[in-house]
Amino acid sequence: MSVLVVGSTALDSIKTPKAENPRLLGGSASHAAVAASFFAPVKMVGIVGKDFPKRYVTLYKKHGIDLKGLQIAEGKTFHWSGEYEVNMNNRRTLSTELGVFETFTPHLPDAYKESKFVLLANIAPALQHHVLDQMRRPKFVVANTMDLWLNIALDDLLRLIKRVDAFVLNDSEARQLTEDDNVLRSLKKIHKLGPKYVIIKKGEHGSILSGPKGLFIAPAYPLASVCDPTGAGDSFVGGLLGYLASQKGDIDRNLRRAIIHGSATASFCCEGFGLNATTRATRQAINARVRELEKMVSF
Amino acid sequence: MSVLVVGSTALDSIKTPKAENPRLLGGSASHAAVAASFFAPVKMVGIVGKDFPKRYVTLYKKHGIDLKGLQIAEGKTFHWSGEYEVNMNNRRTLSTELGVFETFTPHLPDAYKESKFVLLANIAPALQHHVLDQMRRPKFVVANTMDLWLNIALDDLLRLIKRVDAFVLNDSEARQLTEDDNVLRSLKKIHKLGPKYVIIKKGEHGSILSGPKGLFIAPAYPLASVCDPTGAGDSFVGGLLGYLASQKGDIDRNLRRAIIHGSATASFCCEGFGLNATTRATRQAINARVRELEKMVSF
Repeated sequence: MSVLVVGSTALDSIKTPKAENPRLLGGSASHAAVAASFFAPVKMVGIVGKDFPKRYVTLYKKHGIDLKGLQIAEGKTFHWSGEYEVNMNNRRTLSTELGVFETFTPHLPDAYKESKFVLLANIAPALQHHVLDQMRRPKFVVANTMDLWLNIALDDLLRLIKRVDAFVLNDSEARQLTEDDNVLRSLKKIHKLGPKYVIIKKGEHGSILSGPKGLFIAPAYPLASVCDPTGAGDSFVGGLLGYLASQKGDIDRNLRRAIIHGSATASFCCEGFGLNATTRATRQAINARVRELEKMVSF
Repeated sequence: MSVLVVGSTALDSIKTPKAENPRLLGGSASHAAVAASFFAPVKMVGIVGKDFPKRYVTLYKKHGIDLKGLQIAEGKTFHWSGEYEVNMNNRRTLSTELGVFETFTPHLPDAYKESKFVLLANIAPALQHHVLDQMRRPKFVVANTMDLWLNIALDDLLRLIKRVDAFVLNDSEARQLTEDDNVLRSLKKIHKLGPKYVIIKKGEHGSILSGPKGLFIAPAYPLASVCDPTGAGDSFVGGLLGYLASQKGDIDRNLRRAIIHGSATASFCCEGFGLNATTRATRQAINARVRELEKMVSF
């Protein structure tokens, strides 16, 4: 089955200790949609300006992504610029120019409204709500977020969490949301906000899923060299939901393997700037890393 | 087979945000020996002063620990005093009174010299060397260390690393030793220093083993409440080596399960002050957590 991905489509200028890369393809929807495309057909909703490079449209198309939901508006594409420190774990935003994103309202083409698997990639919770309002009967809705929305749109976010099947956030966001340092207690508190499944991402330390089948502790695929981690979290949820949409059987049974496929997909993202390494990945290469991860955790 | 544990035997006064506990039983050898005792007979070498409480000798004996190697000297027992911050991850030393430990030389009783499984728990690398010098033909030697020795006895430590089968350290120590932020590159660099197996401990994020069978990513047993993590690393290596000594078959095959048993044993350590919770554990309770961990990582 296909996956609907809604989020930001952006140009990212990224500085690391080793290199500087201007105007890469970025945004939560771009990363998530390409990641999901290795597993299932993807429909994407986003907005770009007239300055959006044609080669990036070609890239989406190369991954078979349905772009009927991509709005092309007068003005400039959302542009984010950031810098990573030596250890690649800390980053700071240098500038954010919203451009056409400032007035973005995610309108779903009619054909999108029947989608069964919905990924609300990181955008303002109000927009994530607007997407859900247009959906008919989604089977599985995943939402991802970022610290910004905890700071400036917490009420919207709390209402959103109630409406999704799985809520994904990173460890520092979980600490902030629940005011609790302990992962297990955090997970319990987030379940009380509504979602059946909660996934806390821990970067290089992997992730942890809490759901009806208990806890699942998932490894990250270890990399000897991280080039640019921007979008790794988006690739993770994209790969996860893409895999889930591609499988028969119940969600509960498939979710653990979906997380491992998300981890493997995200590892490619980290190996290049922007989407450079992700787009060079293949389903076979992802599967190979899943098998490696399987060996790395078995005892 | 039995396990030889050499390290510090101390009194720990520990302050956490919730409580203060003076003169608990502590020290790397105490934690490691009790942890190992759930799996195999343990011989312990250490030193205490005349002030060492009898109830702690009773505790060692309750765990069947052979104390022929425990020296009782004129003077005071090594006393460490430390304080944990709210998140329990950062601690600072308030005071260190070496007492009888200042002149400690680990003499092995003759019967100890034939031990096949040797745990060089955290003490000065020069003393760890002295132990190895007395051993006849150990089958498997594990050494653990701490940042202090990286700072003040690096040459001794580097010579020691060459002499052991498995070297265990935590992630920040690995970064310091190899001057590398990346775990995979760190592991490679440590292998080049000599040991066949390298284990990097990552606290609540588990641990990672590198050896001839590749990488093993091991989870920590998740706890909803951490009372006092002092000695968790020592309990981890103690449980690990105790389990290994208890199993037939080759080390390579058993080491992964040994690490999981170490994780499970260490989780009990964190649930009480000093050794309070560890001593209340049982082999059955540890096995139950191993089975839980098995479920938590399977996909």
